[in-house]
Amino acid sequence: MSKEKNKVEAITPINEDFARWYTDIVINAELIDYSSVKGCVILRPYGYAIWENIQKILDGMFKKTGHQNVCMPIFIPESLLQKEKDHVEGFAPEVAWVTHGGTEELAERFCVRPTSETLFCDHYAHIIHSYRDLPKLYNQWCSVVRWEKTTRPFLRSREFLWQEGHTMHETADEAVAETERMLNVYREFCEKYLMIPVLAGRKTETEKFAGAEATYTIEALMHDGKALQSGTSHYFGDGFAKAFGIQFLGRTNELQTPFQTSWGMSTRIVGAIIMTHGDDNGLILPPAIAPTQVVIVPVAQHKEGVLEKANEFKTRLEDKFRVELDDSDNSPGWKYAQHEMRGVPIRLEIGPRDIEAGNCVLVRRDTGDKVTVSLDNLEESIEEQLDALAANIYQRALENRERRTKDCPDFDALEAAVAKDLGFYNAMWCGDAECEARLKEKLDISSRCIPFEQKELSDRCVVCGRPAHHMVTWGKAY
Amino acid sequence: MSKEKNKVEAITPINEDFARWYTDIVINAELIDYSSVKGCVILRPYGYAIWENIQKILDGMFKKTGHQNVCMPIFIPESLLQKEKDHVEGFAPEVAWVTHGGTEELAERFCVRPTSETLFCDHYAHIIHSYRDLPKLYNQWCSVVRWEKTTRPFLRSREFLWQEGHTMHETADEAVAETERMLNVYREFCEKYLMIPVLAGRKTETEKFAGAEATYTIEALMHDGKALQSGTSHYFGDGFAKAFGIQFLGRTNELQTPFQTSWGMSTRIVGAIIMTHGDDNGLILPPAIAPTQVVIVPVAQHKEGVLEKANEFKTRLEDKFRVELDDSDNSPGWKYAQHEMRGVPIRLEIGPRDIEAGNCVLVRRDTGDKVTVSLDNLEESIEEQLDALAANIYQRALENRERRTKDCPDFDALEAAVAKDLGFYNAMWCGDAECEARLKEKLDISSRCIPFEQKELSDRCVVCGRPAHHMVTWGKAY
Repeated sequence: MSKEKNKVEAITPINEDFARWYTDIVINAELIDYSSVKGCVILRPYGYAIWENIQKILDGMFKKTGHQNVCMPIFIPESLLQKEKDHVEGFAPEVAWVTHGGTEELAERFCVRPTSETLFCDHYAHIIHSYRDLPKLYNQWCSVVRWEKTTRPFLRSREFLWQEGHTMHETADEAVAETERMLNVYREFCEKYLMIPVLAGRKTETEKFAGAEATYTIEALMHDGKALQSGTSHYFGDGFAKAFGIQFLGRTNELQTPFQTSWGMSTRIVGAIIMTHGDDNGLILPPAIAPTQVVIVPVAQHKEGVLEKANEFKTRLEDKFRVELDDSDNSPGWKYAQHEMRGVPIRLEIGPRDIEAGNCVLVRRDTGDKVTVSLDNLEESIEEQLDALAANIYQRALENRERRTKDCPDFDALEAAVAKDLGFYNAMWCGDAECEARLKEKLDISSRCIPFEQKELSDRCVVCGRPAHHMVTWGKAY
Repeated sequence: MSKEKNKVEAITPINEDFARWYTDIVINAELIDYSSVKGCVILRPYGYAIWENIQKILDGMFKKTGHQNVCMPIFIPESLLQKEKDHVEGFAPEVAWVTHGGTEELAERFCVRPTSETLFCDHYAHIIHSYRDLPKLYNQWCSVVRWEKTTRPFLRSREFLWQEGHTMHETADEAVAETERMLNVYREFCEKYLMIPVLAGRKTETEKFAGAEATYTIEALMHDGKALQSGTSHYFGDGFAKAFGIQFLGRTNELQTPFQTSWGMSTRIVGAIIMTHGDDNGLILPPAIAPTQVVIVPVAQHKEGVLEKANEFKTRLEDKFRVELDDSDNSPGWKYAQHEMRGVPIRLEIGPRDIEAGNCVLVRRDTGDKVTVSLDNLEESIEEQLDALAANIYQRALENRERRTKDCPDFDALEAAVAKDLGFYNAMWCGDAECEARLKEKLDISSRCIPFEQKELSDRCVVCGRPAHHMVTWGKAY
């Protein structure tokens, strides 16, 4: 047990070394364990439960917007991957190749899917024949593999869990609308359930998905001021569809090619939750996805009636909340620290005096604030505290982002802002990839997106001084 | 649309060619599509929705018995796979090997997991230190890959979805109890939710899982009389734990080795549902896992008020049942055939006369029986019909099994029974693997299990005449 205690104490202070703080959290809160497979981690029960809660909410949002789940093969034959030129160029360097089945060498090697556009297109070519077959609104929950050199738990790993939506539409307009709709689903999910404010916009040509005509993104700003791409939605036009020979008989009896989208969110988002909300005491989990929303900690639990009461609460609250009762032998203080590290939103303390008075104490994870509440309307009180916590951590994240967002009308301002602190830097851009590359080289920042909400900070590109077409938000990315 | 109609008509009669009937169903009911990846299929929305319903129920049963979900890597380094001798011998010939990451050849090749005992043991070695850490009751939902030569949708494919439970216990007794507990979960799931009667027992040495001390199984008998292994639960003793150096400090402060189990159920079970309950008109789905439990088909839907009423029903019933409204332009007859093929348990017909009379008609998929019911207690009537359907398809499956189960006191009886018809053949066995091999060779049957419920048909092995130790149930397996 003392080993456990050390776990809590062993967390590096967040402002001393953010990267170490992050690693300490994911290990000590038992979200992951490292595996013998280089670059792949194990999601432990607590880490996986967060993902299950994310899945449940997102899947509901997908179904509500008319999507259906399917399951595609894990492998892509090399010839299939090669059908769309830009796509294979983007992905071939980072796929894992299967060359042998048992003792036999395969006639054609397969890669483990890094993403499944090619598989979906192959299937769509079989099943789309008429405009009546459209739209096709499919999604799958699975893992994908990308052979990354440097890896970090949740943020970048060789295998990661995600969902990938792949849709086909009769017209380009419909496909563009779908691309935007799903980006909005991601935005709503992040802001309403994860309490993470996000910046929505379009990726530059350099940063867009391999094979896409346009990539939309939501970008979140972490506690340390680095940006995290949190969900993307791609519009493909009819490029893949043509490469895969997908055609349908249109309303006027002519053969047409459909228009395509794809969109994905991955376990990276768990990294975003950790790095947006956590503090020196550990994780702070948004109530919507916290595996345990309320932990009941009995005080003086050896005294008569305390454990009985604690158990009674558990049973009472279980219908409405995800509740845990910690009746272990550890001291209350030890338990407090442990559950704080695990980010449990509300701690419910109950002792002999509370029982006598018909009260209990609720402690909020984000502020440490304690309130004594009556048992009569305990459910409402917990609901209120959870809502207040959610609103507060959103507000804190928003303030961090606003404080770290700088409008930079010219290069000097941009350079000074970058030198001063990490954050989002808004600056005007001419649209030329060379200017983008120049900023990467000179200031080590990349374009996060061209935000949908544009401002005109000046009429000149901060790099070349030519007329500016867009305001771009730049940053350092995870 | 006429193409759709042909799909219904194109189903091979079940007693003419069962294998073709099966393929016709999985394709025409749109459960799967073939992919460009040899031996891997695509689960289409209707097929995947069945699996999602199975997952939801089973996952609930696992959680109720104290299990937690985790996620292990998809790859196993060759050296890890080799740690347990029997295990690697069993699986190495049928794994897919990853040899390259991007353009680089890997220093050590990885296989795509065929099952994850080795990965779980590797993890358990990190996290099990004390008897307080036990038991560990983990499960994961994932896909696994086995490089099969001959494949059939759901029954045998190179990639399949499943769950795999992996647990570690302080004592052998506890581990054995877990093995039995989880077999019983599978049995209950099959009998109570899938309406498939199963035979439970132990596998012979020849048929047990590679590396296990004992394998328990549930075996179902399909409509055609062939057997399908539907779920297995393995007891490993401490073999893997020793190979992986897993040790814990016991209650008496001595280092001990834990005892292990694993258990799995896969998408094969969807094949079992199809082949147990289906008929000439297509699928018959057990209500518990049917993606659509009630399909509403309006009659004379162009008449005033009919579609409105149908929509009203949909809204009304949606809270209690998985409901679909078919308001397409197709004729009612076409719709009936279509939804029968898809195995929807109850069809609700509503037309102008029904509306006037305050009634509607419920039609059961299994019997075709129609009942006119009052709208006042529609929910109760549907519930009754669903229950009656479930009970009836279970009964039919049980009768098929009983009719096809033969007690064979000697070799001649066994030979005659095998020659006569497919089914389960009960016969006494001495326990010698050679006698088992002899039966396979002579009669082309394999041991399905040593049933927990034993009978003494004679005191001699039907092959060698030596004293018999067990009654074995034999059969031809999928």
